[in-house]
Amino acid sequence: MTIRIETDSLGPVEVPASAYWGAQTARSIANFPFGPAERMPIGIVHALALVKQAAARVNRRHGLAPDLADAIEAAAADVAAGRFDDQFPLVIWQTGSGTQTNMNVNEVIAGIANERLAGTRGGKVPVHPNDHVNRSQSSNDSFPAAMHVAAARALAGDLLPALTRMAAVLDGHARDWDDIVKIGRTHLQDATPLTLGQEFSGYRAQVEAAAARLESVRPRLHLLAQGGTAVGTGLNAPPGFADAVAAELAALTGLPFAAAPNLFAELAAHDSLVELSGALNVLAVALTKIANDIRLLGSGPRAGLGELALPANEPGSSIMPGKVNPTQAEMLTMVAAQVMGNHVAATIGGLQGHLELNVFKPLIGANVLRSITLLATGVDSFTRRALVGLRPERARIAELVDRSLMLVTALAPAIGYDNAAAIAKHAHASGLSLRDAGLALGLVDAATFDRLVRPEAMTGPSPD
Amino acid sequence: MTIRIETDSLGPVEVPASAYWGAQTARSIANFPFGPAERMPIGIVHALALVKQAAARVNRRHGLAPDLADAIEAAAADVAAGRFDDQFPLVIWQTGSGTQTNMNVNEVIAGIANERLAGTRGGKVPVHPNDHVNRSQSSNDSFPAAMHVAAARALAGDLLPALTRMAAVLDGHARDWDDIVKIGRTHLQDATPLTLGQEFSGYRAQVEAAAARLESVRPRLHLLAQGGTAVGTGLNAPPGFADAVAAELAALTGLPFAAAPNLFAELAAHDSLVELSGALNVLAVALTKIANDIRLLGSGPRAGLGELALPANEPGSSIMPGKVNPTQAEMLTMVAAQVMGNHVAATIGGLQGHLELNVFKPLIGANVLRSITLLATGVDSFTRRALVGLRPERARIAELVDRSLMLVTALAPAIGYDNAAAIAKHAHASGLSLRDAGLALGLVDAATFDRLVRPEAMTGPSPD
Amino acid sequence: MTIRIETDSLGPVEVPASAYWGAQTARSIANFPFGPAERMPIGIVHALALVKQAAARVNRRHGLAPDLADAIEAAAADVAAGRFDDQFPLVIWQTGSGTQTNMNVNEVIAGIANERLAGTRGGKVPVHPNDHVNRSQSSNDSFPAAMHVAAARALAGDLLPALTRMAAVLDGHARDWDDIVKIGRTHLQDATPLTLGQEFSGYRAQVEAAAARLESVRPRLHLLAQGGTAVGTGLNAPPGFADAVAAELAALTGLPFAAAPNLFAELAAHDSLVELSGALNVLAVALTKIANDIRLLGSGPRAGLGELALPANEPGSSIMPGKVNPTQAEMLTMVAAQVMGNHVAATIGGLQGHLELNVFKPLIGANVLRSITLLATGVDSFTRRALVGLRPERARIAELVDRSLMLVTALAPAIGYDNAAAIAKHAHASGLSLRDAGLALGLVDAATFDRLVRPEAMTGPSPD
Amino acid sequence: MTIRIETDSLGPVEVPASAYWGAQTARSIANFPFGPAERMPIGIVHALALVKQAAARVNRRHGLAPDLADAIEAAAADVAAGRFDDQFPLVIWQTGSGTQTNMNVNEVIAGIANERLAGTRGGKVPVHPNDHVNRSQSSNDSFPAAMHVAAARALAGDLLPALTRMAAVLDGHARDWDDIVKIGRTHLQDATPLTLGQEFSGYRAQVEAAAARLESVRPRLHLLAQGGTAVGTGLNAPPGFADAVAAELAALTGLPFAAAPNLFAELAAHDSLVELSGALNVLAVALTKIANDIRLLGSGPRAGLGELALPANEPGSSIMPGKVNPTQAEMLTMVAAQVMGNHVAATIGGLQGHLELNVFKPLIGANVLRSITLLATGVDSFTRRALVGLRPERARIAELVDRSLMLVTALAPAIGYDNAAAIAKHAHASGLSLRDAGLALGLVDAATFDRLVRPEAMTGPSPD
Repeated sequence: MTIRIETDSLGPVEVPASAYWGAQTARSIANFPFGPAERMPIGIVHALALVKQAAARVNRRHGLAPDLADAIEAAAADVAAGRFDDQFPLVIWQTGSGTQTNMNVNEVIAGIANERLAGTRGGKVPVHPNDHVNRSQSSNDSFPAAMHVAAARALAGDLLPALTRMAAVLDGHARDWDDIVKIGRTHLQDATPLTLGQEFSGYRAQVEAAAARLESVRPRLHLLAQGGTAVGTGLNAPPGFADAVAAELAALTGLPFAAAPNLFAELAAHDSLVELSGALNVLAVALTKIANDIRLLGSGPRAGLGELALPANEPGSSIMPGKVNPTQAEMLTMVAAQVMGNHVAATIGGLQGHLELNVFKPLIGANVLRSITLLATGVDSFTRRALVGLRPERARIAELVDRSLMLVTALAPAIGYDNAAAIAKHAHASGLSLRDAGLALGLVDAATFDRLVRPEAMTGPSPD
Repeated sequence: MTIRIETDSLGPVEVPASAYWGAQTARSIANFPFGPAERMPIGIVHALALVKQAAARVNRRHGLAPDLADAIEAAAADVAAGRFDDQFPLVIWQTGSGTQTNMNVNEVIAGIANERLAGTRGGKVPVHPNDHVNRSQSSNDSFPAAMHVAAARALAGDLLPALTRMAAVLDGHARDWDDIVKIGRTHLQDATPLTLGQEFSGYRAQVEAAAARLESVRPRLHLLAQGGTAVGTGLNAPPGFADAVAAELAALTGLPFAAAPNLFAELAAHDSLVELSGALNVLAVALTKIANDIRLLGSGPRAGLGELALPANEPGSSIMPGKVNPTQAEMLTMVAAQVMGNHVAATIGGLQGHLELNVFKPLIGANVLRSITLLATGVDSFTRRALVGLRPERARIAELVDRSLMLVTALAPAIGYDNAAAIAKHAHASGLSLRDAGLALGLVDAATFDRLVRPEAMTGPSPD
Repeated sequence: MTIRIETDSLGPVEVPASAYWGAQTARSIANFPFGPAERMPIGIVHALALVKQAAARVNRRHGLAPDLADAIEAAAADVAAGRFDDQFPLVIWQTGSGTQTNMNVNEVIAGIANERLAGTRGGKVPVHPNDHVNRSQSSNDSFPAAMHVAAARALAGDLLPALTRMAAVLDGHARDWDDIVKIGRTHLQDATPLTLGQEFSGYRAQVEAAAARLESVRPRLHLLAQGGTAVGTGLNAPPGFADAVAAELAALTGLPFAAAPNLFAELAAHDSLVELSGALNVLAVALTKIANDIRLLGSGPRAGLGELALPANEPGSSIMPGKVNPTQAEMLTMVAAQVMGNHVAATIGGLQGHLELNVFKPLIGANVLRSITLLATGVDSFTRRALVGLRPERARIAELVDRSLMLVTALAPAIGYDNAAAIAKHAHASGLSLRDAGLALGLVDAATFDRLVRPEAMTGPSPD
Repeated sequence: MTIRIETDSLGPVEVPASAYWGAQTARSIANFPFGPAERMPIGIVHALALVKQAAARVNRRHGLAPDLADAIEAAAADVAAGRFDDQFPLVIWQTGSGTQTNMNVNEVIAGIANERLAGTRGGKVPVHPNDHVNRSQSSNDSFPAAMHVAAARALAGDLLPALTRMAAVLDGHARDWDDIVKIGRTHLQDATPLTLGQEFSGYRAQVEAAAARLESVRPRLHLLAQGGTAVGTGLNAPPGFADAVAAELAALTGLPFAAAPNLFAELAAHDSLVELSGALNVLAVALTKIANDIRLLGSGPRAGLGELALPANEPGSSIMPGKVNPTQAEMLTMVAAQVMGNHVAATIGGLQGHLELNVFKPLIGANVLRSITLLATGVDSFTRRALVGLRPERARIAELVDRSLMLVTALAPAIGYDNAAAIAKHAHASGLSLRDAGLALGLVDAATFDRLVRPEAMTGPSPD
């Protein structure tokens, strides 16, 4: 491998000649030898590039030479568009301010710009990573701004649309299956009936509420730390820089970013990302509930509940011929468990800030972004490969509701709770149907029974 | 102890003659032998009593005899007001629907009403715990409704006001101390200066945002499960019951309760309580940051940072005379850690619902309510006993900022980053002041130094 | 209420005349106004009293006047035996070293001793809380020593015996039910058979391994911080104090306590309690699995798996007559979720120590002790009220295994995986039995089928 | 891209012609479209290959044709050695039994063997992925066995050696710095002195105990599920298979693997991995404490504690010239927070098993393995780049201990606690030294003060 020499304030460092990055990136590679699986999520890199692009636009108004500003803008736009993803080898586990990833982005943008302007890849002339690309900025404000931008983009572009599609499929099932009366189960024990459509309406409501929770976080997520520079005061940035950069970022992304009203808090803590993580945690809880229900209802085919047929996406077992497993539900509940674990990691990172700076930024950013991405992909896959193809097993559903003992509840107002309980117990002990048990005990006559015990009449409130 | 006999569908049970409760409460005492430290939080009992009071009002309109309705209302109001707190011996660890606490409340209200109407404590005549007090209800909807009511009341009555007071005290400090220029610290290392008032404005912003997060949860918290009865369909409740009870609860509490739009989801999952728990988790994260900073700034008196003097509320050490410890900060950070643990417990409870019913209700309710109560008391105590009495150590603050090496940052635009770094390194290695180091190296003259290196000019953006 | 005046280094304080405690307890009551539900677990108080008793024995050998030592020993023994439990009103949320509870114990022991020696309750003469009861000690070593002693006693006295009983009941079922062939379920889908006894042997193995994990923590739990005094050096304690007190505690409790080899680590961190919490977390995980399985197997009675009949301990529903719910399983899984939450709280407390002292001691101690107590009571109750009374539903079990499609696995070696899969699919699609489907497809003859497809032969390895 | 057709029981699938994998791998790629950052950890793939290698050896003794067995062994050994890492594109988020990764390994080993034996890459002839490579196995036992093997290898090969090196460096500091008397700090407040060597001995003790905890988990980690096949019974495996495969794995790895005594528990739950995760959690807690202390002691250089000088591995700030940050401590504490989050994810996965199979296997395995790898790399990097180069700032340490007010503790036995407290308070209020304050108040004479107040005499127990 051919190399070149780059320098920083600690001296010269060897860099691969083909790389756009510089000395500080090279030092970080050597100082934090984690493997490629631990790379900083590329979404944060892209967001940092957008920050650089926006900052260059504003810095031009404050004296940055137009040709340099143009070159930075163009290079940053290319990085943000994913054209240089292989130039970001740094890992999550670095300095807690994200300084090294910020410098990686500064160096690569400078390196691209210099190649275009001067024909030489890398270096600091004419575009300097610190003096020009990082102008009016600090890692301490750029990195948290990028965390917000990355999370907001992933939310708007991936997760919220996936939830919308999931809710729509659930809503379709809720409507289509509203005539299917089935047994309810509470405590996993037989209970009074409801329709399969009602059951799925509950899932739809959970998904919609989870999306609403994410929406309620967005106003705080759209507030940015940019402009605080080193400690929140804005030293070395011009007045108005915070607002101007946020406006440019809003223009670049279509999302309503704005400067945070208190920049000290935005550097020193990441409460809004912990909040977002909490909203993702609730979504994970809801998805676990839904996926668990669907695998319970799809259990069988002969020795389970068997009320739903799940699509067979792959062979289920290498040892048991013909087996079909609820693999999408398993994927989704595992993803959900990971999100809950990520939430604890983000919480622990969030609580440990000291004075003017929280130095768990890469941990927090990486966990929040991973959670969003996992959930978006997981929800979308589960919707397409499990929910869409669900089919009710109408015969099985009818069989179970018909023989349920809890239909006795409908008799209670007429013959009393104690008599109703006696019928249920007799039916259970003797294996009789409720009707036969009631007639055998002489506690109800056939006409009354047939008039009152109609599952389809038990799926709503009871008129006086 | 004299006893009396009460009965339920499993047969007769002995009950203390002095008790208002009945057979099912007695069975639960025997079946779940946890100690008194594990009692169901009384706030949930009070909220259940409010549910009973509201239900009685609505049931009167649907055929409940007015004298019974009146008696239930009066007894329920007394329970809600805390006049019978010793009648609720049941623990958190019971059936997962909260059925036994619901029956404890039903039995005690019936017991009180019967004593008033018939002269005999307890029993089921003329007021029956199930048929009259629990009319049109199930534990499956009453208990989760009560969890929401209890949490909403504690939030509105205790925690949010405590946060308002805390923010006000922090705001006072932010204003009063805005002239005190101090050293900033990032990575726990000396950084550029800010004012003590700016530092406290960050804390204020964190507290205000935490309160805003709690506010954003309230719309979902005010939606109630009541009216769903056993499985969400509303079987055995009259049409309109959900809305009517919510309206009565709103009237009783002054809080804008309403029926949840989907009752299936409200019985089967408690996502809104997990969400609330997540918002409390963020508050706990923010409080940890603030309390940690204050104990760091108050560390010393001789070998710490020493920038703040904390009130001495008690002797600090039995072995070291004269020691003062940041005990309120220690209390608050411990409370915060508990809230984070409670959040995980609520999350784990929330994810495990099955089909029509989540059966981790008491766990979830108890953890959320404990977290609110701990935070409300902890925030209030910390505000009164630590924040209000904080005093800045102005001489120490001035000494530290004056000798800081990071004031060199102000020289960088004039003499260049590299020269500035050389001065800082020389000052650090030689123990000189920045000024002396700069003059010694010949990299800056005295007039320039004195013009540029003024900490008080470094606490805001830098004009072009 | 009549009062008396007690004093400490901050001055005089009013104390109820009837109380044994003194000034520092009174200050703590006022400074940390949490309710009685938040009291320091009494097990820690008892353990602290044992520490005081042991210390008095050792201090006598180092110059403490014998009459004072005797009086301290006697009073401490009474406190440890639970005769003064109402004298410990302080809450968990106090100074992070547990100083106030340590002083509460010191003051009450002095107060009892003084009443006995001088006729006056409370005070400091002739027995002084600091100089005599706390002699050679600091809260910083006494409180963590007491946390270990309390946890070790609860483990040895409550939890481990409860697990032994649970394992024995599970082992009995495993032996008694080893002839009951049932369908296995993987992914909640029908799989190859096993015996009910084998299934329960897995639960027994989980419980035994969980107990073994707790045993493996005990060697570290039996190491005590006592003797480190303020910062771990042992200043103001005589040489050999650590070993001597540990030996006395071993004699008092029958548990093999010893001085920790490094006292600095024992004051500054509580890794062994976090470890214990982790072992409790695994137990909670195992108990959740077991209790969940039992409620799944007991689901029904008509629309669930229905393989087990659970004891009916109480009426299940106020609205559905005759319902029986798995309430002990619900209790146990809620307890388990709490233990997992407590574990996170203990972890967060454990990670935040600073320099010579971790100041999350009461949080950590209270959570670990609560987890042990909850698990001990929960396991015991579940064993007695759910496990012992479990009954297999033999007819249902036989019906499910007989109609299982996964018995086809036994045909695969003879007719090939593909042919076997074809039979299973045809049976599933047509609703036929495996036998009928096989014969209909002509892929197997009746004699071969009857020879190979015998569930009872499929519950162990397959001879070559 | 050229393709070929592979088939499974669901039909034909397109596969890249260059790939060694087959139909089921291809289906999984399509069904679980997560990105490359989510790949199954390669350590689990390598461990699965070792399982296949061991199984082939045993299967040869039970009738597997020797040429096929040889080919499987050779291919599996190559996969285990990392020569085909690019052939394992599947992600963590798949079926919860790890079936697809098991089939990926089966298919690739068959594909390699077939290329060698028959000249055609991939396919099922002569070596069939299921019938030969997977012979006598199920994903349900192979995957959990591989999780144990992978974790045990990473523990033995990476993490435990890294901890040994860390402890050795800490021990060196503890010895070298045992003459440096410094101020102790409790509650972050000045306390009595200790030596810097004593302080570091505490860290060494924490690291050694953490390693001992990991050692105590190993006996259970070395027990394998292999031999249980589909549900734990061992159906379709020959008698003795479990023991024989474990013995071969022991021979291949040098680690004492053995068959688990109860295979039902090993398939249905992963308590031992949750236990291991808990031991990693304690290590993370200990590392957080140590790294936090070091950054606190290294805070400054002018406005912090300043007792340690940390190595400067990279420029600290792009905006503040000359800044050095504790980046290795930040890396390590972030890694620790991730491990704590991973622990919660593993816990949540562990608690959710159903009946004969836990289907959160990939989640659990991936989190445990990631935690081990992160900790191993993080500990090693922190040791090399932060601990080794630490230097005590002797002058600063001496200055802080000399002016400490808590040296007054040494006077208390001679002049009484109250007089000692009065001196400390006067010194604090007036800014005097303790000596001057004592003389000014007339509470001690110079000779007595100089005799008693010697920090170096206060770092151990106090002779009677």
